[in-house]
Amino acid sequence: MELHQEIKTLAAQLGAILTDKRLWITSAESCTGGGVSYALTDTPGSSAYIDRAFVTYSNQAKQDLLGVSEQTLTLYGAVSEQTVLQMAAGACKAAGADMSIAVSGIAGPGGGSAEKPVGLVWFCIQIGDKQYSSQQVFVGDRAQVRLQAIVYSLKTIIEKIN
Amino acid sequence: MELHQEIKTLAAQLGAILTDKRLWITSAESCTGGGVSYALTDTPGSSAYIDRAFVTYSNQAKQDLLGVSEQTLTLYGAVSEQTVLQMAAGACKAAGADMSIAVSGIAGPGGGSAEKPVGLVWFCIQIGDKQYSSQQVFVGDRAQVRLQAIVYSLKTIIEKIN
Repeated sequence: MELHQEIKTLAAQLGAILTDKRLWITSAESCTGGGVSYALTDTPGSSAYIDRAFVTYSNQAKQDLLGVSEQTLTLYGAVSEQTVLQMAAGACKAAGADMSIAVSGIAGPGGGSAEKPVGLVWFCIQIGDKQYSSQQVFVGDRAQVRLQAIVYSLKTIIEKIN
Repeated sequence: MELHQEIKTLAAQLGAILTDKRLWITSAESCTGGGVSYALTDTPGSSAYIDRAFVTYSNQAKQDLLGVSEQTLTLYGAVSEQTVLQMAAGACKAAGADMSIAVSGIAGPGGGSAEKPVGLVWFCIQIGDKQYSSQQVFVGDRAQVRLQAIVYSLKTIIEKIN
């Protein structure tokens, strides 16, 4: 349960930065299913920097709520750099936010392949019109992959804002 | 950290029921900020019963994403039976889901009043066109209020489906 504590600490740190910089954030989550927004709202006063967030678990939801193109999903798949770039852009636009974090990965235990193994997670952080994408392969069971993806999201947002 | 384990157990139980009954669920969350959808996607195979979920932290988000009326928010406030009834209905409609859970409360430490104390959380579960609303007042700090609200959500959904 050490990761829960780490998430709490990072969320407080990020909350202070967002409040200080008066930035609005939103999230677009697939495999983490709301875990990032749950962390973003962990700190008292979080209504100063987050007002809505999107859990888009299916391809259709990614299209409907975030405007990810069907072609991108068909050509590259939901777990791809191209998809998280569009998720992050769509989330900023739909929320009218200054920045966003998009997460899409294979939490497992099923759904993995040689090319895209279980634990592979793609991230994109958008700040204004800049986008920063990255991929990680986390080791562990479904719960551990998801928790590590949340930790990585918070850490990377802090890093990119600063 | 006992509540985390309870959430995990309840999520697995609920996942099995939803899969068995072939029901699609969605969530509309304010104070839990995605914690319920994070729980609903905790179990492998959850893409069989959840495809999207809504985190509507502000009043404006509740209006934009769920169609909650401005009048309801003004007259009764975001933490009210009237608001969660509309959140649950709006979520079902927006997601095209068979059922939904809506959660709106005062997680604290601020925001409480004599009439609506910190820890007060309103819930509404919609199944088809039936709605079941209830309120709870949870004791504890912000994190504990939110965790108890997630546990209560999962327990009540299971109870109402059966």
